[in-house]
Amino acid sequence: MNAPESTPSPVHLKAVSAAGQPEPTPALQQLYRGFERELLVPLWTEIGDLMPLHPKSKAAPHRWRWDRLVALAGEAGRIVPVGRGGERRAIALANPSLGGKPYATPTLWAAIQYLMPGEDAPEHRHAQHAFRFVVEGEGVWTVVNGDAIRMSRGDFLPQSAWNWHAHHNAAQAPMAWIDGLDIPFAYYTESQFFEFGRERLSAAEKATPQLSRSERLWAYPGLKPVSQTEPLSATPLLAYRWVDTDRALTEQLALEAEGHAATLSPGHAAVRFSNPTNGRDVLPTMRCEMHRLRAGAASRTTREVGSSVWQVFDGRGTVRVGDQRWSVDRGDLFVVPSWQPLSIAAEAGAGSLDLFRFGDAPILEALHAHRRQVDAD
Amino acid sequence: MNAPESTPSPVHLKAVSAAGQPEPTPALQQLYRGFERELLVPLWTEIGDLMPLHPKSKAAPHRWRWDRLVALAGEAGRIVPVGRGGERRAIALANPSLGGKPYATPTLWAAIQYLMPGEDAPEHRHAQHAFRFVVEGEGVWTVVNGDAIRMSRGDFLPQSAWNWHAHHNAAQAPMAWIDGLDIPFAYYTESQFFEFGRERLSAAEKATPQLSRSERLWAYPGLKPVSQTEPLSATPLLAYRWVDTDRALTEQLALEAEGHAATLSPGHAAVRFSNPTNGRDVLPTMRCEMHRLRAGAASRTTREVGSSVWQVFDGRGTVRVGDQRWSVDRGDLFVVPSWQPLSIAAEAGAGSLDLFRFGDAPILEALHAHRRQVDAD
Amino acid sequence: MNAPESTPSPVHLKAVSAAGQPEPTPALQQLYRGFERELLVPLWTEIGDLMPLHPKSKAAPHRWRWDRLVALAGEAGRIVPVGRGGERRAIALANPSLGGKPYATPTLWAAIQYLMPGEDAPEHRHAQHAFRFVVEGEGVWTVVNGDAIRMSRGDFLPQSAWNWHAHHNAAQAPMAWIDGLDIPFAYYTESQFFEFGRERLSAAEKATPQLSRSERLWAYPGLKPVSQTEPLSATPLLAYRWVDTDRALTEQLALEAEGHAATLSPGHAAVRFSNPTNGRDVLPTMRCEMHRLRAGAASRTTREVGSSVWQVFDGRGTVRVGDQRWSVDRGDLFVVPSWQPLSIAAEAGAGSLDLFRFGDAPILEALHAHRRQVDAD
Amino acid sequence: MNAPESTPSPVHLKAVSAAGQPEPTPALQQLYRGFERELLVPLWTEIGDLMPLHPKSKAAPHRWRWDRLVALAGEAGRIVPVGRGGERRAIALANPSLGGKPYATPTLWAAIQYLMPGEDAPEHRHAQHAFRFVVEGEGVWTVVNGDAIRMSRGDFLPQSAWNWHAHHNAAQAPMAWIDGLDIPFAYYTESQFFEFGRERLSAAEKATPQLSRSERLWAYPGLKPVSQTEPLSATPLLAYRWVDTDRALTEQLALEAEGHAATLSPGHAAVRFSNPTNGRDVLPTMRCEMHRLRAGAASRTTREVGSSVWQVFDGRGTVRVGDQRWSVDRGDLFVVPSWQPLSIAAEAGAGSLDLFRFGDAPILEALHAHRRQVDAD
Repeated sequence: MNAPESTPSPVHLKAVSAAGQPEPTPALQQLYRGFERELLVPLWTEIGDLMPLHPKSKAAPHRWRWDRLVALAGEAGRIVPVGRGGERRAIALANPSLGGKPYATPTLWAAIQYLMPGEDAPEHRHAQHAFRFVVEGEGVWTVVNGDAIRMSRGDFLPQSAWNWHAHHNAAQAPMAWIDGLDIPFAYYTESQFFEFGRERLSAAEKATPQLSRSERLWAYPGLKPVSQTEPLSATPLLAYRWVDTDRALTEQLALEAEGHAATLSPGHAAVRFSNPTNGRDVLPTMRCEMHRLRAGAASRTTREVGSSVWQVFDGRGTVRVGDQRWSVDRGDLFVVPSWQPLSIAAEAGAGSLDLFRFGDAPILEALHAHRRQVDAD
Repeated sequence: MNAPESTPSPVHLKAVSAAGQPEPTPALQQLYRGFERELLVPLWTEIGDLMPLHPKSKAAPHRWRWDRLVALAGEAGRIVPVGRGGERRAIALANPSLGGKPYATPTLWAAIQYLMPGEDAPEHRHAQHAFRFVVEGEGVWTVVNGDAIRMSRGDFLPQSAWNWHAHHNAAQAPMAWIDGLDIPFAYYTESQFFEFGRERLSAAEKATPQLSRSERLWAYPGLKPVSQTEPLSATPLLAYRWVDTDRALTEQLALEAEGHAATLSPGHAAVRFSNPTNGRDVLPTMRCEMHRLRAGAASRTTREVGSSVWQVFDGRGTVRVGDQRWSVDRGDLFVVPSWQPLSIAAEAGAGSLDLFRFGDAPILEALHAHRRQVDAD
Repeated sequence: MNAPESTPSPVHLKAVSAAGQPEPTPALQQLYRGFERELLVPLWTEIGDLMPLHPKSKAAPHRWRWDRLVALAGEAGRIVPVGRGGERRAIALANPSLGGKPYATPTLWAAIQYLMPGEDAPEHRHAQHAFRFVVEGEGVWTVVNGDAIRMSRGDFLPQSAWNWHAHHNAAQAPMAWIDGLDIPFAYYTESQFFEFGRERLSAAEKATPQLSRSERLWAYPGLKPVSQTEPLSATPLLAYRWVDTDRALTEQLALEAEGHAATLSPGHAAVRFSNPTNGRDVLPTMRCEMHRLRAGAASRTTREVGSSVWQVFDGRGTVRVGDQRWSVDRGDLFVVPSWQPLSIAAEAGAGSLDLFRFGDAPILEALHAHRRQVDAD
Repeated sequence: MNAPESTPSPVHLKAVSAAGQPEPTPALQQLYRGFERELLVPLWTEIGDLMPLHPKSKAAPHRWRWDRLVALAGEAGRIVPVGRGGERRAIALANPSLGGKPYATPTLWAAIQYLMPGEDAPEHRHAQHAFRFVVEGEGVWTVVNGDAIRMSRGDFLPQSAWNWHAHHNAAQAPMAWIDGLDIPFAYYTESQFFEFGRERLSAAEKATPQLSRSERLWAYPGLKPVSQTEPLSATPLLAYRWVDTDRALTEQLALEAEGHAATLSPGHAAVRFSNPTNGRDVLPTMRCEMHRLRAGAASRTTREVGSSVWQVFDGRGTVRVGDQRWSVDRGDLFVVPSWQPLSIAAEAGAGSLDLFRFGDAPILEALHAHRRQVDAD
């Protein structure tokens, strides 16, 4: 009763279309004026846009070059102060077909954040989920509920809703990283809450430990503290370190070479950052993963409902999204709109191509609206 | 670690604000031009709008008068044919502050649909979830996967994603009802799929049984067919009849009068339409309920994250949403934007005030973003 | 990695067997004495019994005749008082191969309970889950947390853990019914708690309403009170009435006759009593169902892990369990041990055969240990 | 309606008791003979035993000395061969009050297993869940579905149902370890299945890698392979290494010393082995944990529904279970029956006291029958 996949004789129209429109008579015009007056809109004039045969994303595929982002962020570092009110020196990707809004995709925010030596970003908390990913550099500690978390190349730092957080650059050099948030989704669903915290961290919070308290409690394979065994909607582990991620990807490719199932497809390894308390996505609204393509290997061509943002972590390669094709290098970012085919190939004869990825799949999956399709090659 | 409700000395700014803006120097202007060129937008100029202290809905509270909707729908019945391409003679509420789009709220579609005597609306299916609610009239059967379902005053008919459906007016009179869908949400998340079915129903499908097959299988309190015991993401019961809904509301008020806990607040009864296979909301994206206020009673003033649409089913009363206040009568519709306070009062000295309501709470709850607050009186 | 169904060359022994036993030397005898002294037992002498190739139930298939149960219960009614300490005039089925314990199967208790006119059974509560099923008669009200619930032929009354309850016979005649509980399972898992309540019900609690408060709140298809929407581990609906059960079974057979999927197998209709707050079994440890075989029809032959107890509600037929075969009539009870094949046939040329059934499948399913197999005919 | 914690005037009897028994008249004797003849047992004579006010375990608290187990296992190594039929050289704890059965508690099996140099235990699989825990030694590899897993001191190796497995001693010395299984529970619920595999491992499977394939795929904090992201009912990670467990316990005590919440109670650290695909217990029926008491520290006194088995991994201390009190040393095992109070104290002035523990709590929790209570000191 619920999944009636087969039925007799569907009509194959190319689109819900102008075919169904009534004759433009004076009576119709008068009717349409009546609709306007009463704040009404008929379905039959809008259905083609509203209910297409498959998703036609408003967002465009686009690539941003990392060197240009870093240059502009550095310039901002020189002339734009960080402080209460503006809160963060973060500069967001604005998808070229989303009207100039700071949205990488309809649901996702991606920004480069930049802190000068010795600078602090003040404490606040918000209902939006966030994470940091570090493509290069070190020296900043993110302080979450008083727990100082080191940020270094390759590290992934989730930051779920409504936790107090600040950033502190303890180094002699500036540092840049990317922030991912569900700001557009929270804006759209009108579910935002925000609260200002303290302007300055305490001396104790400016400590620069190698390991945060959250890691000391949680960063073990398959081990949970018995004092905290209830499932949480977001991860309590606040840093996922590159040393682990790198080793997991390396082993997947090694297992594949030994003849065992471990990779997504030949030469394509991938790990997902997960919430150890329930095994699900690290954040309720964002799926975060690291991918590695062996030199010369290519991913399958896939399309899925929902959008994602990718950043090259290392290596060089070629990416196709819809009808776009780019070469990509360390730090470059690109977006994949809903239902656009994506394929990625690592340059041959060089090292592997590593990419960080985040997307909105948990939203779609929670609502049973996710679909994914692998295209025939 | 996850819910740090208390912290020292938060700063109480009125808003994320202009306070944090840098001096408008030539260097800054040049930086901003660089951002534009590279498709970048800084957070510090946008944060006040993007990340408010609490939701500030783009949608406006608004009320639509049923008599005007019916008059315009009737006129459409005379001059706009129903058929393949336009698919349905449905006329949607367009929230006055959502740019003329046929969106009752940012996530919800609400429309009056109208069929002339003997008319059919052709078969199709789509990824959007839908339902029908009948405020008056009878004579139409909705045919879902070949199962003909009677529509009569007070009935609620859910219609989950990807089921084939058509409508057939078997009566001598036109019939109007309301359709609710998650069209705006599917449009926003770019998760739409649509498929055309047959243009005509078979003679067998034009049968007009009192009870659909889905009801004969599922419409029993707490009973499931053993042949179909796996949980489904949407309800397999395709009609929730007024006779049951009315009795449930009547009994809640009677139990309250006898001194037992049963109502939401004094004089305010409410039932939720649920999926019998998992006890959750009837559809994955929409919460649907019927409310009854005893003559002279008033609801509590509540606000919640997410939006909803209400239709008066019977009786008269007064509604306050945010700074709006309306008197309402049978069939009138109104919308409640996110985090706007809502209160409803039934006219004294008359019958009770019955209201149908649907909202997007399941979306927010699935993502752990729901908040609800009862205001002090 | 988790379900390695295929492997090379398994050895097909008939059983884990004596084959593996060591030579009975003096040294071995001395070793075995050492084991005894230290409270140790080797696996190799026990494995055939402990780890058979498939379940070999300790329980025996058995049938009890209703007329004999009722006669003995009536005699008990005349000479055994009901009161504090003994608590209930309940007489339990003792499986012939479970050592005289009052266990119908290793996990399930089934008893006939009997109340004389005007008698009360005193209030108590316990951690064991219970239900009542009424094969004949009327006049008793079960009072659960002060809510009086009528008991009539065909009604099913679940009674989950730790709710206060008493029984009151308001009629001029004795009444008998069956009680089902998970007493043996609670005994085995050593999870029992028990508390005495009041010895006498209040006058108000001796009311004899047609409908209990729980039904007035919950007995609607797919409707939940908005005041109580959280899922509960056991059903809040305290009576499932015969009129609904009968209609559901009738409709399943009618739908089958019209050519639609509705029954378990041709001529075999079945409904499961479910918890409306989560769609799962009515009680966490017991699955309760009503089955109907059309005159002349036979069920498939099935075996499943776990045990069940059946009672004929109406009609006549033949039952096979393992190597046993019985004719059964109204009220007769029989037990089906784990992994024993079961088939049931309704007598031809008479009415349909209706059977109530309860079993321990929710225990096995919750622990991922359930298996079910339909034998080829 | 579901948790009626308060009621008027419960009668405080000391037990369900002889108080409720009828007079022993000839008519009663005749009635009882009728019950026996018809395989019936009345509740009123059994209720005191069946339904006590709280659990009264049939099992006894008991301690086994590791040195005596090892000595007997070594003797068995000399005179009892390992092979097809007997399957394993495993010697089980037999609780002194469970009738000589090889049950440590009513639900749990605990055994010492022993392999001589070069010996193999043949391949099989079964529906029972199992694990190995290594208190001392090394040299054996467990081969699960062809994946060879090293066993070393402190390692925990889960082995969920229906996976092929064998053991291979690659060292020059014998090795002993403990096996834990839910054999008594599977026996009681009659849910056993067993299948013989190959008698000999292949040469490739006799490899002795440091890390198993399962670890190379899964042993990372919070990382999952994207190729295997669906939740599994039991863990895919087949070894939990001591280096991780030790570090987690060390950090909990260090965090406590720094003033942060991390331990169960002062001086008492504990980690739970968990299934990384769903965050739940490592096996559906057994909870497995490692505990550490700082020198001189004592645990709280707790009682819980269900039973557990403990083994001292390191250090010395004193244990109280019910009215028993023992000093314990490395390798010693003891059992805690249902609802018996337990407290453990580490010897002062020495190292910490480390204990491995497994119990049946997941069974009780899955069925909502778990209770736990901390006694006032």
